[in-house]
Amino acid sequence: MRAMPAPIEPLRWEGAVPGTLWILDQRKLPHERVELRVEDVPTCCEAIRTLAVRGAPAIGIAAAFGVVLGAQRGRDLVPAVEAAARDLAASRPTAKNLFWALERMKKVASERGATAQRLLDEARAIHEEDRQMCRAMGRHGAAYIADGANVLTHCNAGGLATGAYGTALGCIYAAVESGKSVHVYADETRPLLQGARLTAFELKESGVPVTLLADNMAGFAMQRRKIDLVVVGADRICRNGDFANKIGTYSVAVLAREHGIPFYVAAPGSTFDLELASGSQIPIEERSPDEVGSHAGKRVAPHGVGAWNPAFDVTPARYVTAIFTERGVIEAPSEAKVLAHFGAR
Amino acid sequence: MRAMPAPIEPLRWEGAVPGTLWILDQRKLPHERVELRVEDVPTCCEAIRTLAVRGAPAIGIAAAFGVVLGAQRGRDLVPAVEAAARDLAASRPTAKNLFWALERMKKVASERGATAQRLLDEARAIHEEDRQMCRAMGRHGAAYIADGANVLTHCNAGGLATGAYGTALGCIYAAVESGKSVHVYADETRPLLQGARLTAFELKESGVPVTLLADNMAGFAMQRRKIDLVVVGADRICRNGDFANKIGTYSVAVLAREHGIPFYVAAPGSTFDLELASGSQIPIEERSPDEVGSHAGKRVAPHGVGAWNPAFDVTPARYVTAIFTERGVIEAPSEAKVLAHFGAR
Repeated sequence: MRAMPAPIEPLRWEGAVPGTLWILDQRKLPHERVELRVEDVPTCCEAIRTLAVRGAPAIGIAAAFGVVLGAQRGRDLVPAVEAAARDLAASRPTAKNLFWALERMKKVASERGATAQRLLDEARAIHEEDRQMCRAMGRHGAAYIADGANVLTHCNAGGLATGAYGTALGCIYAAVESGKSVHVYADETRPLLQGARLTAFELKESGVPVTLLADNMAGFAMQRRKIDLVVVGADRICRNGDFANKIGTYSVAVLAREHGIPFYVAAPGSTFDLELASGSQIPIEERSPDEVGSHAGKRVAPHGVGAWNPAFDVTPARYVTAIFTERGVIEAPSEAKVLAHFGAR
Repeated sequence: MRAMPAPIEPLRWEGAVPGTLWILDQRKLPHERVELRVEDVPTCCEAIRTLAVRGAPAIGIAAAFGVVLGAQRGRDLVPAVEAAARDLAASRPTAKNLFWALERMKKVASERGATAQRLLDEARAIHEEDRQMCRAMGRHGAAYIADGANVLTHCNAGGLATGAYGTALGCIYAAVESGKSVHVYADETRPLLQGARLTAFELKESGVPVTLLADNMAGFAMQRRKIDLVVVGADRICRNGDFANKIGTYSVAVLAREHGIPFYVAAPGSTFDLELASGSQIPIEERSPDEVGSHAGKRVAPHGVGAWNPAFDVTPARYVTAIFTERGVIEAPSEAKVLAHFGAR
């Protein structure tokens, strides 16, 4: 067993109620570690919208605490929670965890004798459960990572994207903790470079060897047999196993299948949307073309040239070797297997 | 017929011998148009190595003029040409056109009564022939681009990469000149962003509508039926039709086949290396990891994190629908068809 450094956490609550949400500003990583003080719902929405906090599970946790921020300021609990949930739900459209967390918070607010303190307890529970789910998921996924494996991942599905520890990176951390040697290839993940900025940062902090790739290099790395398996996170998984994740995931999945490389998804139950039959129903956020045409405030493309900037894509289930959840593993996912996994039929 | 603006040219020779090579510094595009004055071989090598001039045909032309620079300074023509050719050959390893142009120049230098003026004539001929080849290739390729087509291209295979007009973009320009409406999706092409900086620039200057994509978006664009065909350039084509081109081309080719989208390559005869049986024999340049760890000159990844940075990849011929050359079209390329195309057996 190998001890890992204390995990990086993307947010924390300070005090009871009224209290303060502190969000590690991921836009500034890896060069600066700055925490944002978040004391009201608009600031929380802005932090989610601008990706100061990102990653489906972390967005869910941030939104849960965001509801507490609304509740601790409002005179009437239920209307305050409803208003906060409505604003937070509009911050980003794709990650299921956001809506899942808001539903949990609204349910607590609707209970007899609900208080802001009770809402804080629920948000803390969501946070702590996510940590536990990541650990459990990591143990399930680690069994699929051989000693000496070269693992490709896309975007950041690590501690920064969750309560702590991570989904896809949680599987890698668990493999390393069990004594395996693992080397990670990290896609840089344009346009916002979560792979180069966040995944490389986390892995370096954890002492896991990492090599950065431009996104367009993954196919050639597979052709040259540099990659043994792929593991990524997810923002929303449909009941047939189709899933949305950071733009570029679909291309990686097609390339992995072309090369006979296993392609795994790691995500907690809160990422599943069993109401959606297939991936075509997932709303895909499109962000500003400037994110593609510019970098770090500097325009790269000629002025006046437009861009298409979907923040996510959809990978059909047929490309997925297995999904790791806190409950176990869904191999070759299908509607029947997904529903059975959650005891939902 | 639609008139196009005067084509952008990446280099020009001023004077006779001794004369000066002026190279448009593509590292500064699209925001600044600066010409580099090149009066000796080391400066020419440096311009090629640092991508002030890039694109397989343009590198070949620059190298031909580079030989003239060596010859016009040397006291003895043959040793001066040999030294210049040796240095220029070491500037970049992958593009065949570089070595092809140097062979032509050395052959002229070896002829009885060779002079620097005769070498300049040959370099000018190489330049002019490339312009003509691009026009011919464009006519052949344009027949494969339907009115209203959405065309994906990767990197820059335009006027800036050639004597003028371009290979892949030449096909698009010819289609537009023949009256067709064409919309281009341009992969930004990390790490050096030739798509965002150069292809978007050229197309905008030419009045051809262009939408920029991060490289990892091409697969999703195909899944959502936004792309009708792909056309790219090449740096070296083997006699079986396998070819090297800018890193990321292979991924685009795999994705195109997965979606049943035609994938075309446009390249002049000078890009073919009939001595190489297959793509595994092509030397692939690996450049500094800093190009991946940085974006637009600014460090993005944590310091100390390494990267893999192959500048090119190899696409097997089985992914290629057709190759356009100045001589015509090689559909479903194979060794027999490539050799027959060049009358080489």
